Amino acid sequence: MRVNYDGTSYYGFQTQPGGNTIQDYIEDAIFSLTGERLKITASGRTDAGVHAYGQVFNFLTESRIPLHRWCLALNAWLPEDIILTEAKEVPLEFHARHMAKRKTYRYTVNANRFPDIFHRRTQMHHPTRLDVEAMKQGLQFLIGTYDYTSFASRHSQKTNHVRTVYDAHMTVDYSFSRPDSDDQGIIHTYFTGNGFLQHMVRIMMGTLLEIGEGKKQPGDIPHILAAKNRSTAGPTAVAHALMLWKVDYEENT
Amino acid sequence: MRVNYDGTSYYGFQTQPGGNTIQDYIEDAIFSLTGERLKITASGRTDAGVHAYGQVFNFLTESRIPLHRWCLALNAWLPEDIILTEAKEVPLEFHARHMAKRKTYRYTVNANRFPDIFHRRTQMHHPTRLDVEAMKQGLQFLIGTYDYTSFASRHSQKTNHVRTVYDAHMTVDYSFSRPDSDDQGIIHTYFTGNGFLQHMVRIMMGTLLEIGEGKKQPGDIPHILAAKNRSTAGPTAVAHALMLWKVDYEENT
Repeated sequence: MRVNYDGTSYYGFQTQPGGNTIQDYIEDAIFSLTGERLKITASGRTDAGVHAYGQVFNFLTESRIPLHRWCLALNAWLPEDIILTEAKEVPLEFHARHMAKRKTYRYTVNANRFPDIFHRRTQMHHPTRLDVEAMKQGLQFLIGTYDYTSFASRHSQKTNHVRTVYDAHMTVDYSFSRPDSDDQGIIHTYFTGNGFLQHMVRIMMGTLLEIGEGKKQPGDIPHILAAKNRSTAGPTAVAHALMLWKVDYEENT
Repeated sequence: MRVNYDGTSYYGFQTQPGGNTIQDYIEDAIFSLTGERLKITASGRTDAGVHAYGQVFNFLTESRIPLHRWCLALNAWLPEDIILTEAKEVPLEFHARHMAKRKTYRYTVNANRFPDIFHRRTQMHHPTRLDVEAMKQGLQFLIGTYDYTSFASRHSQKTNHVRTVYDAHMTVDYSFSRPDSDDQGIIHTYFTGNGFLQHMVRIMMGTLLEIGEGKKQPGDIPHILAAKNRSTAGPTAVAHALMLWKVDYEENT
């Protein structure tokens, strides 16, 4: 199934002792609907406050509810900031995390002078001067296959930090900018890769923002990558501006 | 000054006995900043739940705070869903309501199958079939100078219901629609006029939605206008999908 959620009120996707996770709400909804206490498998966790536009998860059910009724039926049991938008039958061996080919994240910075009240839950506000061209140059150095240790949380439990970032690009939307102002637009940065380490997108963004502020240079990125040392990169940018945008699988699944 | 607000949590713009209005919060912020207890004059009221992207109001102050500092200084005293974005000095005789030349409202219908969790506070959700072409045809009949009594609340206290709608148009945004689905897009309808009666935009939208549903025909609009009778038009569409988009004044003010 495909699910969208506004992560503002939740402690992240994955079940944890404190409760109040997206996974808990979905599993409870499935229980209410089918009577089955089962575990869902997602394409990956998202941190507290992070949103999703196209998170994917799978599970095995014995319910005979027809496929086309699952979304509306489960949505009726879910809070209004979690919405299922797609249900599909998959082969028994399907695994939403192992079989994900590409994941895309979007990070949104509002670089206009004033916050946008209608999008404040999904934007970081950065009203001071940003050199977007320098950020775009820095972004190009992040594309490729590297050991991204410098861009991973120190608490990462993965033994291998090599990942491939297939694409990364920035778009700037001026439609919310006031004419004749110093508004710099809404900056969306998209990262597509075969997988991302803990906090990886947020640390890449924190580093790019330092480049935009003139504290780092675009050409510093290759050195940061080579250092394999978290302390060489910038800070971890805030969670609430991050969205799991899309998860791609092989055509035939 | 120009102000944006998310009307979700407020009882409308204009001060009223129950409190909790946008006007109250702005006047309290001005008092906190300057010590002056004064009344602001807005371009018009907005109903409970209605939003604004470019509401305008004026007031007379003796404060010596420099013009360019007003927005940030007042924003610091305002809740995060009310934001001032522009301050300008105007002639003493300026009046935000009397001198408004044109006002534009936007009404947003999400005609995709599922609600959009990130925009649900500013959209009406209408997942069932809508004939958008018929709605566009009906919309054209609403442009002009007419007595809009049929499209005004029965509680309207205006003696004259003649208004001019200069422009009305619909745009459909498919960027949130799922491929190969029955999603019909996000429908934004913009109305620009010299003034609007109580509930006028919402009743026009309620009538257009009945046209979209096939309950009325586009050609019914001229008859509804001619009837000057509220009961001939459609229902009043929900408030939370309405936004005061823009207020225009003469160039030199």
